[in-house]
Amino acid sequence: MNDASYPVTERNRVRRKPDRGRFDKATIYDILDSALVAHIAYTIDGQPYCTPTGFWREDDRLYWHGSSASRMIRSQAKGVPVCVTVTHMDAIVLARSGFHHSVNYRSVMAFGTARLVTDAAEKARALDGFVDRFFPGRSKEIRPADPQEIKATSFVVMDIEEASGKIRSTHVMDDEEDYALPVWTARIPVRQVLGEAEMCPRSIPGLPVPEGLKGYTAGRSLDEALLEAYHKVYPEG
Amino acid sequence: MNDASYPVTERNRVRRKPDRGRFDKATIYDILDSALVAHIAYTIDGQPYCTPTGFWREDDRLYWHGSSASRMIRSQAKGVPVCVTVTHMDAIVLARSGFHHSVNYRSVMAFGTARLVTDAAEKARALDGFVDRFFPGRSKEIRPADPQEIKATSFVVMDIEEASGKIRSTHVMDDEEDYALPVWTARIPVRQVLGEAEMCPRSIPGLPVPEGLKGYTAGRSLDEALLEAYHKVYPEG
Repeated sequence: MNDASYPVTERNRVRRKPDRGRFDKATIYDILDSALVAHIAYTIDGQPYCTPTGFWREDDRLYWHGSSASRMIRSQAKGVPVCVTVTHMDAIVLARSGFHHSVNYRSVMAFGTARLVTDAAEKARALDGFVDRFFPGRSKEIRPADPQEIKATSFVVMDIEEASGKIRSTHVMDDEEDYALPVWTARIPVRQVLGEAEMCPRSIPGLPVPEGLKGYTAGRSLDEALLEAYHKVYPEG
Repeated sequence: MNDASYPVTERNRVRRKPDRGRFDKATIYDILDSALVAHIAYTIDGQPYCTPTGFWREDDRLYWHGSSASRMIRSQAKGVPVCVTVTHMDAIVLARSGFHHSVNYRSVMAFGTARLVTDAAEKARALDGFVDRFFPGRSKEIRPADPQEIKATSFVVMDIEEASGKIRSTHVMDDEEDYALPVWTARIPVRQVLGEAEMCPRSIPGLPVPEGLKGYTAGRSLDEALLEAYHKVYPEG
């Protein structure tokens, strides 16, 4: 359990619905570590871009796949300001007025300065880390990266300078006088669910499911499986 | 069926994995209209922000809930450049090398200039549209917005100037020489699934499920239900 918190500044203050804001690292880490995809905002020549990409966390540091972000970073040697956002949608909330219609969610916005991973040792660690963080132990079970692949892969890293979490997890919340209205009103849960694994048609028959993939069972929530895998690889959090 | 396409420019060209790029409006609209939440990238004083928010489309125009974007827009009378990104995750792809590990997804990045909706008639339409687009007919079934709520709600609108879609929907794709390796290799589907509606504890008993919510049945994919609702409200697409 991490009982530290991020400082609240103008950049990460939760302006809209501040009662939903969370700044403690335990909550923010759980939201991040339950996800595979983040949306990265960055700016090139005044134009903002928002790119979805696979990411993971190590302590207060986020790593992600290079993509066009690396083009941006290569052009600015000192790194660039970015915002990394992770969102889990948990329910649709149908109220008695339009104003109180809502969505239950858990989200994090993390701010920092992104830089390209150029150090060979850090890059080698990231190559394995990107696989093992999601599928514990898998980097040892697959074919290692060859020099061409290492060259073709780029990673970006960002130390989290500030972050904020935001959570809505309550039921329908209507104005008191509206509860008497004859309106069908409910919360409809939404889950990101894993299906049955579809084996590669060219798989060698009879291979057992690896230990690091046993958590990815059909019907399970993806965020649960990802968080469990995370704690296997990073038992300290 | 819309057979128009967006122009390809430096801003929306798909640089990484260009074979996954889509520029036809039919594909891009389907990806947008299957979603409730978009991630909006915008810049304030050089700092990029990425905010998740409910959104919907009308023709080549996207609307979303104001949030802190409106603060930004209010400060710049002529509107600001934004990027609106929608991502659906469809599968985890476990290959025989780290390099070919992947995720199946459908995503759209849409670019344009955002402005605050200030015209009273456009705002009234947006207030109803934000409810009806997801739950056809619901704006007529709930308590109408009062002046205080209308004042407290802000919407942002953006004409799509350029957009690109990106889709990966294939199975495991390994290097030819790697298929012989004894590695457990599969595609694990991921779906965002609706659960059983949890009625508001203060609901009036016996109210029937409204017509516009009958598509939101337990076990169904959220994106399917959202796309179906969309076409009920916008039969022309």
